[in-house]
Amino acid sequence: MTQTFRFATLQLKRRLPPSVVSTAEAALFEASFDSSKISFPPEAVIKPRKEADIGVVLALANRHRVPVTVRGRGTTLMGSAAPVRGGWVIDMLALNRIAIDAQAGMAHVQCGAKVGDLQRAAEAEGWFYPPDPSSKEYCTIGGNIACNAGGMHGGKYGVTRDFVLALRGFLASGDYVEWGTATKKFSAGFNLRDLWIGSEGMLGVVTGAVLKLIPLPPARWTLLTSFRDETAALRSALELFRRRVQPAICEFLDRESVVCAERAARTTVFPGQAGRPLILIELAGGAAEVREQKALVLGWAKEHATAFRAARNRTEAEALWAVRRKCSGAMFELGDSKLNEDIVVPMRSYLKFIRFLAALKRRSGLPIPTFGHIADGNLHVNIMYHRANPGEMRAAEAAVNELMRTVVDLGGAISGEHGIGLAKSPFLRVQHRAAQVKAMRAVKDALDPRGILNPGKMFEPVRIWKYPKLAIHLPWDHK
Amino acid sequence: MTQTFRFATLQLKRRLPPSVVSTAEAALFEASFDSSKISFPPEAVIKPRKEADIGVVLALANRHRVPVTVRGRGTTLMGSAAPVRGGWVIDMLALNRIAIDAQAGMAHVQCGAKVGDLQRAAEAEGWFYPPDPSSKEYCTIGGNIACNAGGMHGGKYGVTRDFVLALRGFLASGDYVEWGTATKKFSAGFNLRDLWIGSEGMLGVVTGAVLKLIPLPPARWTLLTSFRDETAALRSALELFRRRVQPAICEFLDRESVVCAERAARTTVFPGQAGRPLILIELAGGAAEVREQKALVLGWAKEHATAFRAARNRTEAEALWAVRRKCSGAMFELGDSKLNEDIVVPMRSYLKFIRFLAALKRRSGLPIPTFGHIADGNLHVNIMYHRANPGEMRAAEAAVNELMRTVVDLGGAISGEHGIGLAKSPFLRVQHRAAQVKAMRAVKDALDPRGILNPGKMFEPVRIWKYPKLAIHLPWDHK
Repeated sequence: MTQTFRFATLQLKRRLPPSVVSTAEAALFEASFDSSKISFPPEAVIKPRKEADIGVVLALANRHRVPVTVRGRGTTLMGSAAPVRGGWVIDMLALNRIAIDAQAGMAHVQCGAKVGDLQRAAEAEGWFYPPDPSSKEYCTIGGNIACNAGGMHGGKYGVTRDFVLALRGFLASGDYVEWGTATKKFSAGFNLRDLWIGSEGMLGVVTGAVLKLIPLPPARWTLLTSFRDETAALRSALELFRRRVQPAICEFLDRESVVCAERAARTTVFPGQAGRPLILIELAGGAAEVREQKALVLGWAKEHATAFRAARNRTEAEALWAVRRKCSGAMFELGDSKLNEDIVVPMRSYLKFIRFLAALKRRSGLPIPTFGHIADGNLHVNIMYHRANPGEMRAAEAAVNELMRTVVDLGGAISGEHGIGLAKSPFLRVQHRAAQVKAMRAVKDALDPRGILNPGKMFEPVRIWKYPKLAIHLPWDHK
Repeated sequence: MTQTFRFATLQLKRRLPPSVVSTAEAALFEASFDSSKISFPPEAVIKPRKEADIGVVLALANRHRVPVTVRGRGTTLMGSAAPVRGGWVIDMLALNRIAIDAQAGMAHVQCGAKVGDLQRAAEAEGWFYPPDPSSKEYCTIGGNIACNAGGMHGGKYGVTRDFVLALRGFLASGDYVEWGTATKKFSAGFNLRDLWIGSEGMLGVVTGAVLKLIPLPPARWTLLTSFRDETAALRSALELFRRRVQPAICEFLDRESVVCAERAARTTVFPGQAGRPLILIELAGGAAEVREQKALVLGWAKEHATAFRAARNRTEAEALWAVRRKCSGAMFELGDSKLNEDIVVPMRSYLKFIRFLAALKRRSGLPIPTFGHIADGNLHVNIMYHRANPGEMRAAEAAVNELMRTVVDLGGAISGEHGIGLAKSPFLRVQHRAAQVKAMRAVKDALDPRGILNPGKMFEPVRIWKYPKLAIHLPWDHK
């Protein structure tokens, strides 16, 4: 196999400029892992200078059955960008053009563009691109499309899928294709645009996109609230939504998350109320609109919260945000390893889920700090354990299995914004019936008959927590 | 072939209650056509009482290779619901349950539910479902999903696809499947939900959906404006968008459309300014938000419009709307036949397109009244001709061909909200490269290997205007 790959790599070097294809040890190592930190060295790394290079790579890969794994910055925690079958890695970072069409309210981007850069380019023209994964200062729009990334604005504004108008790129065969046009309506033929979104590089390679923007909300207002316990917090949030208030952001932190953050910051959020669950609310919109909603939210906070504090300006808002930003990194005081599960629960199941979570913490004996996007039910459940402790490892594995089954029983999803990759592959069949998995595989075979695109992912159950992890610190790691 | 179908139909009658399967002449005729009014009689009509019936039908159809065409109310103009290969028609109208989850802001619907009923059910709970095809008091949500229907709210709020959170239904094999959950985030496996949306019943059968709702805008404000000519109207609209105003509705009517409507109404919209192109604007949102935007829009109208009139209440707004509602039916004074093309043009090409359209009217010698959704570029170009006049018929055919090529050259789409069906099938390859069509067909073969789902559509070019039309009046026909 490796022999064939080497032959194909030689051919590739002949077809593309020398600076585009690298087989240097350091380059291969860099491309061998993503944020899951499990390393699978490839045969070659390709850094295309122009989108057409990718057609050349794929045509050759398809002919010689070379696995191709596409990567942006590699911030995914799911192992989706790890070249588990070797072969070639295409690194998209050099394809990073961004152009804002200020009149139409659209962004024309290449897949290697950074999400943070896109947001700033849009804002400079009075437009807003809402999807904002916490890694937005590192991750690329191509990666966001691959896993249908979400972020904190999902409840009100939607996720990546809701902002993609058109995609261009290449089929496994190397053929160039365009799905959709730079228009808000398109109803001409099967919707392969959306099939590509969230397909984790397994059905085609995206090289560019046209994204929808919305008018930049001129006003924002931030409020931090605390509650007696998790049930009170979630019950209160539901009451807020019942009043038809749609915060731009609505972040929940359970007691364990707050305790971690407060310990790391050496302060308590609300004096005398250490370790209470929090909800952080941000309204966004026109000045008048925000004023209207603010009155509703303050009325609600007076009725329901044990304490609350509003920010009078952006500096104070940043101070309120500090606790949310701290919690994820601070959790590593509770264990050296984390299973970070971005599950989703429908609103009707919030209270049932929070009771289940309390019981799971008790039964497993593990800390499971949980926080996340309460306007869309996308919670980050962090199962903390020590890798060297076999008892904790078993407890963590049992807990994640129970979590996934329960989430699906409650009508929810095993992933809201990370995708499947390697890490969630053991749970694909918890979410999907056999007929559904069969249909997905049929689509995969139809669009990638030789199975070259990101092989080894999604369908083949891999217990990622059993693999040795690289002991490295990545720029976007918390703390 | 028909022999086999008859045998299968007998089996079907044995498997389902007698009231569900009909082979009565009248029922077969009713199910033989949609709004394109071209009749293809099927072998049997199935009116399922419960969703599970559809699994039974499909398993049997798949075994015996019986074509299956699913229909809601049949309002499509594209021939998408006409059973061109005979076989069985599934009529979904009895599956019409609607349940609003007022807390989560979601609607749980069966595919036969009427879009107008869904909107009213949502509004009763303070929620809003924006997609609003002009046939909304007849057409079903299943049909809207099949063609990814749009309507007047597309520019600000999006189209059907933007509101579908989850679908359930059956594969061609008869297997039950669910795509997505009742949550705003879902990133677990390939996105077959969106692949089904707009697939015109060719990749699976939708039986139910979970739809996202948005808070009902409490305030609306309507303004009718007129302009010197089409170029001035579109140039002014672009200036409005450049000011970051997003009207909920922004409808354009060209001179020919206005002349038709004014003649039918025996009045002029603005005294002394007969036959000027119009733009009808509706703002929606919170009271304060609408007040803010209203000031911007009035300032713009004073600068750009030759005349304008605002509605002080809903009755006055309805009066402003009369001209828009009249124009489509009134066009039949210009010809007994209409090619209604729902093309989409990107904003950057508006002015080029309007120049092209003026030239096309001159060259073809035909009236081509054009109106539509100017906030998203989705224009209804109505090529009017007399069927009995061979010269006009040839001119109409030449005009539609030129229109489609031009739209694609300008970066637009051959359909924004109607889909392909039969009527747009000659233009599929104008929009899509060979590799794109090949990929779509591969997906079709993967999900429907025996080709039973709505065969004869989309991929096989059919010149629908050559077929004889039924001389019948449908309830949703204009006038």
